[in-house]
Amino acid sequence: MASRLLTPAEAEAAIRQHATQLPAVRLPLTELSGAVLRESIISTRDQPPFDRVTMDGIAFSFSAWEAGRSSFRIAGTQAAGVAPLTLRESSDCIEVMTGAMLPIGCDCVVPVENIEVQDGVAQLRDDAPAPVREFNVHGRGIDSRRGDLLLPSGCRLGPAEVAVVASNGQTHALVAQAPNIVVISTGDELVEPGRPLEDWQISRSNVYGVLASLRRHGYSALSHDHVPDDLPTLRERLGSHLENNDVLILSGGVSMGRFDYVPQVLQELGVRMMFHKVAQRPGKPLWFGVGRDGQTVYALPGNPVSTLVCLTRYVLPGLQASQGATPLEVETITLAQSYEVKPSLAVFLPVTLTRTVAGLCAMPQPTRGSGDFTSLIGTVGFVELPPGPRVVQEDASLPFYRW
Amino acid sequence: MASRLLTPAEAEAAIRQHATQLPAVRLPLTELSGAVLRESIISTRDQPPFDRVTMDGIAFSFSAWEAGRSSFRIAGTQAAGVAPLTLRESSDCIEVMTGAMLPIGCDCVVPVENIEVQDGVAQLRDDAPAPVREFNVHGRGIDSRRGDLLLPSGCRLGPAEVAVVASNGQTHALVAQAPNIVVISTGDELVEPGRPLEDWQISRSNVYGVLASLRRHGYSALSHDHVPDDLPTLRERLGSHLENNDVLILSGGVSMGRFDYVPQVLQELGVRMMFHKVAQRPGKPLWFGVGRDGQTVYALPGNPVSTLVCLTRYVLPGLQASQGATPLEVETITLAQSYEVKPSLAVFLPVTLTRTVAGLCAMPQPTRGSGDFTSLIGTVGFVELPPGPRVVQEDASLPFYRW
Repeated sequence: MASRLLTPAEAEAAIRQHATQLPAVRLPLTELSGAVLRESIISTRDQPPFDRVTMDGIAFSFSAWEAGRSSFRIAGTQAAGVAPLTLRESSDCIEVMTGAMLPIGCDCVVPVENIEVQDGVAQLRDDAPAPVREFNVHGRGIDSRRGDLLLPSGCRLGPAEVAVVASNGQTHALVAQAPNIVVISTGDELVEPGRPLEDWQISRSNVYGVLASLRRHGYSALSHDHVPDDLPTLRERLGSHLENNDVLILSGGVSMGRFDYVPQVLQELGVRMMFHKVAQRPGKPLWFGVGRDGQTVYALPGNPVSTLVCLTRYVLPGLQASQGATPLEVETITLAQSYEVKPSLAVFLPVTLTRTVAGLCAMPQPTRGSGDFTSLIGTVGFVELPPGPRVVQEDASLPFYRW
Repeated sequence: MASRLLTPAEAEAAIRQHATQLPAVRLPLTELSGAVLRESIISTRDQPPFDRVTMDGIAFSFSAWEAGRSSFRIAGTQAAGVAPLTLRESSDCIEVMTGAMLPIGCDCVVPVENIEVQDGVAQLRDDAPAPVREFNVHGRGIDSRRGDLLLPSGCRLGPAEVAVVASNGQTHALVAQAPNIVVISTGDELVEPGRPLEDWQISRSNVYGVLASLRRHGYSALSHDHVPDDLPTLRERLGSHLENNDVLILSGGVSMGRFDYVPQVLQELGVRMMFHKVAQRPGKPLWFGVGRDGQTVYALPGNPVSTLVCLTRYVLPGLQASQGATPLEVETITLAQSYEVKPSLAVFLPVTLTRTVAGLCAMPQPTRGSGDFTSLIGTVGFVELPPGPRVVQEDASLPFYRW
C-alpha cells in the first residue's frame, strides 16, 4: 500500500472493484422493489399489443366523417378485454371503452363528452375538436416492439420497472440475492438502550442508525451484535459472523487507540485488507477488506457522524456494486453560503436544504467536531468538499449524498 | 360540490384534511426506520453526557503546556467506558482513548500522531499544531441539554433520528401504526402475468407498480386483488376489503365508460366521496373518499401512467398525513428545455435528470398519451406544469415529485 492516503474517489473505486458479486435469484413480482436486475428483459409482445382505445366514447370510420357525416347509429358496444367487433356500415359507430381493442373498420375515437346520444344515435357536438385519423387510439407497437430490450441487466427496479416486468407477462425476474448483513458495534463505553448508565457510559446508537439506513435502502436480511474491546471475544464473534454473513459492517475499533483491535483481528481471520484510512474528515480511519469466502467487510470509525457518513459514501455504493447495479450518477448541489475548508483532507459536510433565488441549495450544518447524532437532526445528507485549505464559494457545484 | 374541477393543490389539501389519523403504537428501535413519530423525544441527559475525548492521544493540563512544558510522564491509561482517572501532577499526562471521559485535572488532548513516546514519556512534536484549551474535547452539553426537545411529534424517522432515539436511552418510540393497504385492480382486459393472453388482453401490471412504490416508501402491510367489471362481485369484494383495511387503492373503473362502476359501488358501501376528477392530465378521473370506519379510499384511473402519477402526487402524501407527518416542502427543479402545455389543465410531465451548465435539470419525457409503463423506463419522477395554453420556459422552477 502506498503511504499516501487514498482519496474518497479512490476508496470508492477500490470498494467497487473488490465488492464480491452476490448470486442471482429468481424473485416474484411482489418482492422486486429496489432489487437489481441480473438478466435483460426482452419484450415478448408489441406494446401496446393492439390498437388500443384511450378514451371512453365512440369509434367510427374517419373517412365517413371526412365525407360529411357527423351522426352515427350505435351498432354495438366494445368493452375492454373481449374480441374486437367489426363495423359493418360506415354510417354506424361502436361505443368503446378505454383499454378496449379498436373495433375492426374503425380508425377514430371521439370521447363521450364530445357527443350527444339520442335514440341510439350519437351526434358529434359542434363545439368539439374536429376528429383526425388515429384520434384517441394508441397504435400497436408505438411504445416498443416484440424483441426490443426493455430493461438491461444491472437496472434498479423502481415502480415503473417492476410494472414493465409484469406487463411483459413475467411472474418472476432474475435479480441479485439480498445480502445477509450483520452490523457490529464495538466500544466498552456503549450500553444497550434502556439499561442503566454510569456517568461515563453512553447508549449504543450507531448500530440502530446503520440498520435504519439499510432498511430505508431496501435491505432487510439484517442482524446486529455488540462485541466488547477484548481480543479473544472479538476474534471468536467476528469469526462466527464471517461464517454467517455476506457483509459485515463494523462501527468502532479502527482508530489508533490502544484497544482498537478490529483490523488486527480481521486480518487474523483471513480478511484481506484492501485499504485502511482515507484522506477525509470525518471518517479517516475507514478500513475495508474481503474475507476468504468473498465476504465484504466495512469497518467504520465509531464516531456516530463518521459512521453514518462512511455508510452513505462507501457502504451503500459497495452493496449496490455487489448486487451488480450500474453505478448511478452522483447528485450535485450548490452551497447556500461559502464554506472554509481548513484541513488538507476532503470534508464531508452535513447540510439541510434551503431555497434561494438560485433554487434549492445546501445549507452547511457543521457538527463542530461533534460525535453526536443530535447534530445531524434535520439534515438530509452531506456534500463532499475538496481538500483545503481553501474557501469553497457558494456557487460551487458539489457532490451531494442523501442519508 | 362545485362544478369547477379541483386543482391538484386543492385535491391534495382535501386529502390531507380528510385522511384519517392512524392509531399510535410503540415500536422497537429496529422497526422505526421511516416511521412517523407520535410523541416528542425529550433529552434525558446532556449530550455529550460528559467531557468526551474525541481523539486517541494524551490528556494533560493546558496551563502546564502554557508554562513551557512539552513532555509529560504517562501516568496511566483512560479507556472509554470506565470511570475517570485523576491527573495527580501537572508534569504528568494520561493516555486517552476516543470516547473516553476526560480525566479529572486535564483540559487538553493531543492526538497520538502528534507525539513521540519513549521510556514512558510523551514528547509533543515540534511540527504539531499548538494545543489550546479544550483541544480535542467535546464538552458536556454542547450539543443539547437534558430536557431539550430533540425530535418533535410528526417527525419522520431517518437513520440519524432513529439513532437519536437510541442514544436517548429508549428501546421503543411511539409512532403511527403502519396502515393495512390493499391495492385493487379492475378491468376485464387484465390477465395475471404468466397466464396465456388473447390478442385483446394485457397483463395486469399496475398493481405491481403500485406495490413496488409503496414498498419503496416503507409500507409493508400490503395485499392485492383483482375484481372483474361486474357490479355484484365488485360490491362484495370491495365490501370485504373495506372491512379488513385502513386504506384501499383502486386502479381503474373511475372513468366515464359503461362499466366504470367503482364510484357507484363505493358510495353504496358507505364511502363518502370527497371529490371526483381533478383538473389535471393525466389522471383527471381521480376519485377520493372516506369510509364509515375512516378507511381512506383512493380510486385512481386505470391508465398505467395515470395510476403511478396519482399514486405519487396524492396517495403517498395522503398516507403520510394519515401517519401524522409534518408535510415536507416539495422539491423543485428547472426544465432542461422549454415545454408547451396545450390543455387548460395542470400537466404532470415525466422527466429524466440531466446535467446542464445550470446544474441538474429535468428533461421532459412526454409519454405521447401512452398508457404504457415502458414509456416511463428511466424516468425519476415528474414535474407539475401549470395549466395551458402556455409555453413553460426552461428556467422555470417547477414542483418535482420523485417516484
